[in-house]
Amino acid sequence: MKIVQKFGGTSVADISKIRSAATRVKSEVEKGNQVIVVVSAMAGVTNQLISYCQEFSSNHNMREYDVVVSAGEQITSGLMSIALQDLNISSVSLLGWQIPIFTNDAHAKALINSIDNAKILKHLDKGEVVVVPGFQGVTKNREIVTLGRGGSDITAVALAVSVDADYCDIYTDVDGVYTSDPRIVKKAKKIDKITYEEMLEMASLGAKVLQTRSVELAMKFDIPLRVLSSFSDGPGTLICSEEEVVEKEVVSGIAHSMDEAKITLVSVEDRPGIAASIFHTLSEYNINVDMIVQNVSEDGSTDLTFTVSKHELLSAKDAVENNKEIKWRKLLIDDDVSKVSVVGVGMKSHAGVAMTMFKALAEKNINIEVISTSEIKVSVLIKANFTQDAIVCLHEAFGLDQVEDSSQ
Amino acid sequence: MKIVQKFGGTSVADISKIRSAATRVKSEVEKGNQVIVVVSAMAGVTNQLISYCQEFSSNHNMREYDVVVSAGEQITSGLMSIALQDLNISSVSLLGWQIPIFTNDAHAKALINSIDNAKILKHLDKGEVVVVPGFQGVTKNREIVTLGRGGSDITAVALAVSVDADYCDIYTDVDGVYTSDPRIVKKAKKIDKITYEEMLEMASLGAKVLQTRSVELAMKFDIPLRVLSSFSDGPGTLICSEEEVVEKEVVSGIAHSMDEAKITLVSVEDRPGIAASIFHTLSEYNINVDMIVQNVSEDGSTDLTFTVSKHELLSAKDAVENNKEIKWRKLLIDDDVSKVSVVGVGMKSHAGVAMTMFKALAEKNINIEVISTSEIKVSVLIKANFTQDAIVCLHEAFGLDQVEDSSQ
Repeated sequence: MKIVQKFGGTSVADISKIRSAATRVKSEVEKGNQVIVVVSAMAGVTNQLISYCQEFSSNHNMREYDVVVSAGEQITSGLMSIALQDLNISSVSLLGWQIPIFTNDAHAKALINSIDNAKILKHLDKGEVVVVPGFQGVTKNREIVTLGRGGSDITAVALAVSVDADYCDIYTDVDGVYTSDPRIVKKAKKIDKITYEEMLEMASLGAKVLQTRSVELAMKFDIPLRVLSSFSDGPGTLICSEEEVVEKEVVSGIAHSMDEAKITLVSVEDRPGIAASIFHTLSEYNINVDMIVQNVSEDGSTDLTFTVSKHELLSAKDAVENNKEIKWRKLLIDDDVSKVSVVGVGMKSHAGVAMTMFKALAEKNINIEVISTSEIKVSVLIKANFTQDAIVCLHEAFGLDQVEDSSQ
Repeated sequence: MKIVQKFGGTSVADISKIRSAATRVKSEVEKGNQVIVVVSAMAGVTNQLISYCQEFSSNHNMREYDVVVSAGEQITSGLMSIALQDLNISSVSLLGWQIPIFTNDAHAKALINSIDNAKILKHLDKGEVVVVPGFQGVTKNREIVTLGRGGSDITAVALAVSVDADYCDIYTDVDGVYTSDPRIVKKAKKIDKITYEEMLEMASLGAKVLQTRSVELAMKFDIPLRVLSSFSDGPGTLICSEEEVVEKEVVSGIAHSMDEAKITLVSVEDRPGIAASIFHTLSEYNINVDMIVQNVSEDGSTDLTFTVSKHELLSAKDAVENNKEIKWRKLLIDDDVSKVSVVGVGMKSHAGVAMTMFKALAEKNINIEVISTSEIKVSVLIKANFTQDAIVCLHEAFGLDQVEDSSQ
């Protein structure tokens, strides 16, 4: 089989961790697998390099930023290759520009356009492990680029697609995807299998295990992903298509995000084009809007509420206030909120999830400020200080609590 | 004018030092010069990366070592470019493989074969400063290589040759080349001008300011080098051809090296081919021999003495003992020695330098164990504990002492 093994920053944080990651590669090689290894920068290195750039100016040139920051993964790729050779595994590192992994020109957040797999396949067929630094690529003009935060996951999945790998293993510092954040919900359970769609919702709703773009890519090309721990043995969590997840729970997990801020326009004139005008302005300011809620109109005016990332709240407020096409009576902002979401493909065919959710929250006297739903999730915005209570009570209400503590 | 400015590791040790190096570049740009900047890794980074590799095995793959270690200069090149832009100087970093700087395949000690200057000239002509990471290149097969220790000096001089630069400035943490090590000889003087030949002898005899290969290259293509301090203003030391050094001192400096060990073969059979046999064996062991002295023969046998680096003493001894073609009565080894040298193009035409040297040493009761001469230097091997005394007395004997302390 062809497989991709990706090791995150904490999994390659120092020489002994790189060595132990290399033994995981070795055991796959010994099973007869052809292996591509994708590595992140050693934990802390990327932040160090970014802060160097920022010490000059927050406005530094992103072409040069990419030259600086991509060095982190480059270092790990050479070290991982040395670690493998030290275990008598033939290996070779191939940098983004050497493969090449071609991207567009968007420095610091490039998108992969194509991967030339010829060099990789040549080395794999020679029985060598190919070690690739994650997070980096090269433009047609041979400029170094990086793929943005979490980009090493993208590199791993894109390589898996490129060589038609049988699966892609993502090694990290947790042993899988959990029904909720185990630091908040003590009874959180590791999920054995989850669909791409659910994982996507979980990731975009705040679960930090996997990067959204990498899950999308894996889903598109149906590459099974496994989230595994570098520091313990265990089956991890398999992320795959719905057909393969036989035993579906109605709800697979409870996600949350503290990075929420709410803007409400009170008594906006209610006529066609108003919402379009507001969100056009916001997109011109490059502000990502998450939840949007508009109440039914009374007396020709309505209230419009939307949420943005906390750090974009003030620029979002500016953007809206600079839009002279629309009028409102009051503009309210609130960043003391959090978003709690219930996720599960099971709810597609199952009424009552929203009801169960709202009832559980009501019993804890938690007020719901905004509601937003999709086919496989229900999200609510609540006061930030209720976050933990909300997660714990929903986790229990949907039967996600671990039955035996001994299984932990 | 076209110039190359090279900044060593201590000159780019942190962000504020990179910023201050960038202001030195800016002032050259403002004079109307086209500037190529060559940077080393931030002080300590290369050693850190090398030690990572060595933690796996001292025998690690040098191809991967180069991938790891070259990242240090890559980081500085991006940061220097950002620093320049922050000072409103247009700049672009070009890595070894982007230029490309083509080398042979000798990983970790590659030699530059050719530099394609088209990209560099294009950017210079657009009014941009080109920032190049030192110490790195690329093979014809697009493998990353490094040039070995001190390789950033080579990069700087090779680039100066490639674009036919008017001069090449080497910024470092000392303000020039001194007549002797200022830590040992308090009255050591900065040399204003020195010939390539003298600088070569000084470098190969232990002066650590410049790397021998880079001086050779500058001499071959007659590129004037200046050694300057990053941390103070001043004219530094100009290294140039003999014609330009008008006011020649007989002796320009006193160099010394503690990295010496001596092997003596007592009563070797004295017949043709003996020396050839011994040094053939040593070269097969890759041992560099420095001084070689053979005394005149008495009764058909002679004493042969040579010196090697301290860390090669034991393998040199092994090598000689494994040579079964030759016989001797006793093999003596001694690593408690140092080499002190008097260097100067002036001595070519000036008798009496050796005499002055031996007399000065004799007056201090310093015994000379081995003598070796070339056209522009006389070296002696002495007991290590006399090193400082020897340097100080020779410095005075050749009139190199600074007259006024106030000029320091």
